[in-house]
Amino acid sequence: MDYSMRFSDIAEALEEVLPKALHIAIFLVILTLIQTIAQVFKRNYPRLIELFAGKHHLPLADTSSFAQRNPSTSFRAADHVSDGKHHLLLAATGSVATIKIPNIVGALAKYDNVSIIILLTESSSNFLQGQSGEQPSLAQIGNMKNVDGIYRDEDEWRKPWVRGDSILHIELRRWADLMVIAPLSANCLAKMAQGLSDNLVMSVVRAWDATGMLDPARPGVPLPYSGKKGIMVAPAMNTAMWHHPLTAEHMKRLKSDWAIDNGGWIEVLDPIQKEIACGDTGAGGMHEWKSIVASIEMRLRLHSSKEG
Amino acid sequence: MDYSMRFSDIAEALEEVLPKALHIAIFLVILTLIQTIAQVFKRNYPRLIELFAGKHHLPLADTSSFAQRNPSTSFRAADHVSDGKHHLLLAATGSVATIKIPNIVGALAKYDNVSIIILLTESSSNFLQGQSGEQPSLAQIGNMKNVDGIYRDEDEWRKPWVRGDSILHIELRRWADLMVIAPLSANCLAKMAQGLSDNLVMSVVRAWDATGMLDPARPGVPLPYSGKKGIMVAPAMNTAMWHHPLTAEHMKRLKSDWAIDNGGWIEVLDPIQKEIACGDTGAGGMHEWKSIVASIEMRLRLHSSKEG
Amino acid sequence: MDYSMRFSDIAEALEEVLPKALHIAIFLVILTLIQTIAQVFKRNYPRLIELFAGKHHLPLADTSSFAQRNPSTSFRAADHVSDGKHHLLLAATGSVATIKIPNIVGALAKYDNVSIIILLTESSSNFLQGQSGEQPSLAQIGNMKNVDGIYRDEDEWRKPWVRGDSILHIELRRWADLMVIAPLSANCLAKMAQGLSDNLVMSVVRAWDATGMLDPARPGVPLPYSGKKGIMVAPAMNTAMWHHPLTAEHMKRLKSDWAIDNGGWIEVLDPIQKEIACGDTGAGGMHEWKSIVASIEMRLRLHSSKEG
Repeated sequence: MDYSMRFSDIAEALEEVLPKALHIAIFLVILTLIQTIAQVFKRNYPRLIELFAGKHHLPLADTSSFAQRNPSTSFRAADHVSDGKHHLLLAATGSVATIKIPNIVGALAKYDNVSIIILLTESSSNFLQGQSGEQPSLAQIGNMKNVDGIYRDEDEWRKPWVRGDSILHIELRRWADLMVIAPLSANCLAKMAQGLSDNLVMSVVRAWDATGMLDPARPGVPLPYSGKKGIMVAPAMNTAMWHHPLTAEHMKRLKSDWAIDNGGWIEVLDPIQKEIACGDTGAGGMHEWKSIVASIEMRLRLHSSKEG
Repeated sequence: MDYSMRFSDIAEALEEVLPKALHIAIFLVILTLIQTIAQVFKRNYPRLIELFAGKHHLPLADTSSFAQRNPSTSFRAADHVSDGKHHLLLAATGSVATIKIPNIVGALAKYDNVSIIILLTESSSNFLQGQSGEQPSLAQIGNMKNVDGIYRDEDEWRKPWVRGDSILHIELRRWADLMVIAPLSANCLAKMAQGLSDNLVMSVVRAWDATGMLDPARPGVPLPYSGKKGIMVAPAMNTAMWHHPLTAEHMKRLKSDWAIDNGGWIEVLDPIQKEIACGDTGAGGMHEWKSIVASIEMRLRLHSSKEG
Repeated sequence: MDYSMRFSDIAEALEEVLPKALHIAIFLVILTLIQTIAQVFKRNYPRLIELFAGKHHLPLADTSSFAQRNPSTSFRAADHVSDGKHHLLLAATGSVATIKIPNIVGALAKYDNVSIIILLTESSSNFLQGQSGEQPSLAQIGNMKNVDGIYRDEDEWRKPWVRGDSILHIELRRWADLMVIAPLSANCLAKMAQGLSDNLVMSVVRAWDATGMLDPARPGVPLPYSGKKGIMVAPAMNTAMWHHPLTAEHMKRLKSDWAIDNGGWIEVLDPIQKEIACGDTGAGGMHEWKSIVASIEMRLRLHSSKEG
């Protein structure tokens, strides 16, 4: 049988007959088909549906988070109390300096006793889609040593909540010994200074135990700031943004009112002068990633513990 | 004619021939078909399109709001001036205490002279999808006595606005004798204290008549606060969130600067100590729902009016 | 061959046989087809995918922005330094007064030496879908004289960013001689006063060069405020919103702390008393659009330059 003949016939016929008498009958059949397929699809191929519904550019690699790949398992801090590891909650917000996250994770790969969970805001995840050598995809980062989870906003209420379910941003706060936000964008600096918590990263920040009394230390794991947990932030923004008078107002809260040195829970790694990604030269660039790693090592006392 | 033979043939043929010579011809036909179907679909089956484009989990029940089911009718406060009922605008924001909304509505079912419109933020609607017995779907809540509407963010500009159209958040403010926000989440507390109005609930709050002079009382319907309308809020959040120093700053605006007792328009129902959903024990849990109902009854003077 | 017979047969057969034995075989074929089509579609017909995934109402006209129609070209201020034109960055935020944007653009059509780029927040673009004579679509506005671009939030990270790519909100700030935000909604007033930058318009505002030192003037093009660039805002909101005490707090920053007259970078065009779109009468309505045009003409010195 000559298939090429047969399908060409159908093609011609369709073009000729469609606008005339048949389309109602055909549509009914196809609508029924598609409705059924939609249901089957929806249940079995959520990623393809996302492809249809999602952004313009095809994801360059699998950007699904751990939670997406394992939607049925929910994260509980209690399951990790006795893992004997330092718990680093490493967050990035919407600045191009997000591309330093893989460097930071890579530099910590020499330690066997560190567990890293990565949090990304929607904006920051744009920078890690595998679009260049220095910008691996989330799936690639998820395969790096010590990375035990990557969470994004959509993971918060993935499963319809019922009584007894854990709440992700609370569990992440409990789990973390140290939270590092690098980079902290101008927008998230404003949210942090003013208590807005409309994404997963800022929900953890807003739910941080400012009193230091709620979450007990785990046996054998020293907490980073004289027995207290804390949040280390590395602001990064365009030079003009940095010089905007609001920046100083917001920074005052983090560097003074709520600073570790004043009995608070926040340590700021100041921006540096350099030519930043947007082309302006001046202050506002993120603290060097190697210095961020050094600060993490110091706060988690990684040098004095066994290395891999 | 043996259909099973015929379709199996097509299946085999497709698998064999597709990668070779025919796919361009077939694609052209199918693309034409799908483009036409897309147009027809879009106009006739918006819910199915939503299914394709929406979240991972299938909605557990019909979560469409009144406005979705009746997109052509727009809400106008003027249509309800003489209904002889107390108008309660009952809003929930992103806290698990949202599951108390059905209890509050149910407790008011004994009154015949109460009209309730429910507002839900996107976060709060996650908690009412019919996923458990205490968490009915919005459709189920919409069928409860006295519930005359449920609105969400997407209802605000559902129909492209033209001059003369009403504006939903303004009409809702005009309609309401009393607005109750229970629960008020940490995030929406911050938005309320700082004037952010990026969702329907916060737009009503921002458009509230702080002067008490714009919206006249309706004949025969007493207003709740010495002849003034007002907003009653019941904050609810994790204990650590509650103890964060920003909470006190934000609460000061609501409990002092803008309080009914100081000539303002806000009444705060303080959180209580209890074990809250996230597992922490301490302050921050929402005011008991029965006390919220009692406060509503007192402010709307429901006990002294005729009961059903 | 009788096609109408043939397709009717298929239709009947499908309805009869589908629920029985064949559907697995058919589904496999169709799933394979659709998966392939999805990939092809995704690459070639992004607008159709948007149609599937988008809002309920069909767009009344082509609402794609310049960037959508030309996704491969990125905007760089440096390409426009020597165009000999005044650069007006005209932004609208979520108020119904957005419908005055076409009037403002139209009134500037008499000048040949003005280049206008329009920015719209997601809320404001609801008001310009071609739904009425005074509300042309973005495509229609894009065809008006002097309009050299229309950008929305989704244009910011349309292409996955790699090192060397420009950053849209920074390039727009560099490009602009004068930014005009008309209308400035209550919500965006709050964001502006408090440094939130979660959309494209507010990102440009947050990245504005408050120091006046970063972006040099272009040869032969005078800057609007004594040699400095600046942002002119025309707040517009419901009367009750305007009288809310937070409005005065936020306005104080713009009209006093950061005002051009105090060495800052912001000029406020005060709201006026009138019956506004929502039906309330009182303060809060946007400055008359003709006065906004006059202010733009004065600041850009358009009258003294050659006219078209």
